[in-house]
Amino acid sequence: MMKLYNAELSGNCHKVRLMLSLLGLKYELVPVVLKDGEQKTEEFLKLNPLGQVPVLRDGDVVIRDSQAILVYLAQRYGGEDWLPTEAEPMGKVMQWLFTAANEIQHSVAAVRLHFLFNAKIDVEVALQKAHQILQILDKHLSERSWLECERPTIADVACFPYVALASDGKISLEPYPHVVSWIERIKQLPGYIGMPGL
Amino acid sequence: MMKLYNAELSGNCHKVRLMLSLLGLKYELVPVVLKDGEQKTEEFLKLNPLGQVPVLRDGDVVIRDSQAILVYLAQRYGGEDWLPTEAEPMGKVMQWLFTAANEIQHSVAAVRLHFLFNAKIDVEVALQKAHQILQILDKHLSERSWLECERPTIADVACFPYVALASDGKISLEPYPHVVSWIERIKQLPGYIGMPGL
Repeated sequence: MMKLYNAELSGNCHKVRLMLSLLGLKYELVPVVLKDGEQKTEEFLKLNPLGQVPVLRDGDVVIRDSQAILVYLAQRYGGEDWLPTEAEPMGKVMQWLFTAANEIQHSVAAVRLHFLFNAKIDVEVALQKAHQILQILDKHLSERSWLECERPTIADVACFPYVALASDGKISLEPYPHVVSWIERIKQLPGYIGMPGL
Repeated sequence: MMKLYNAELSGNCHKVRLMLSLLGLKYELVPVVLKDGEQKTEEFLKLNPLGQVPVLRDGDVVIRDSQAILVYLAQRYGGEDWLPTEAEPMGKVMQWLFTAANEIQHSVAAVRLHFLFNAKIDVEVALQKAHQILQILDKHLSERSWLECERPTIADVACFPYVALASDGKISLEPYPHVVSWIERIKQLPGYIGMPGL
């Protein structure tokens, strides 16, 4: 059975748990206790030299990085549904995966880490970036229901958790009504699961 | 003809120029003068609401984000050569694209931005992250010639520019001999092109 090396409060782990659930896949959770530094042990670094969760093990295949895991799961178990294979829609979906890995990670997600776990960051800079990306998302979603392809894809799954968890970082989504509606649509998907804070 | 909205000194633009050249594709460069804020004009924000270069226009298709553009180009023009379509190798290649977008961008690339363009960052933190990722890359490359799949893929193209430009940020690659050899192998690829600093 697939194994997911997991931390419950990690939004990056949640996007993988959510994807596994949306695909109806069975898997085993292997808890990694971040506050005890279990992600930095020699054993764990063999799985992921970056010392981060999540990591997915599927038979002999080991994949690190939440976004890369979404690609792997979509491509292996999701057919065309969650990740189109044609160049144009694939490129469009990819745009948002990198937005999740970079802009969202270093803004809304970083502010949340600061308030929940006392992470040392420049809060002012991160907050400014957070509102910038939320504004961009809100405008984009004002004209469509899903980020790309007129259907839910891994683009939505990748961007969802840290945006939906914004209030953990004391960021209100009230100025972003289209983002709020999109979050509600995701919560209605068959197989949707939540996490603490959602 | 394809148009690349481009800034000459951007490593993210360079990875796209390099990919276009490796694929032997013809394209037109549209210069975007970052110091004049041309990436933040209303007209440019229509192409990319994030206000960043590079952006690729290929007929009606507009793709933002250097890594997403690599995926698009590989999938559309590269066949299986640069991006495998099977789940496992695709996931493995993807891991490094997200490493490029996140860990490399916020370490070696950020330090370079600081020294070249006076970008305000926490240099100490970025330097620490830079050496961490260079060490990981060096170890990974001590056992193989290319990042994944035993051949050059977009994983190598995505990680290459900012690593190879480390000296712009006064970071020596001397402690990382396998990274240095990998850079040399990339420079030997048919179609390789350099940029200022390389």
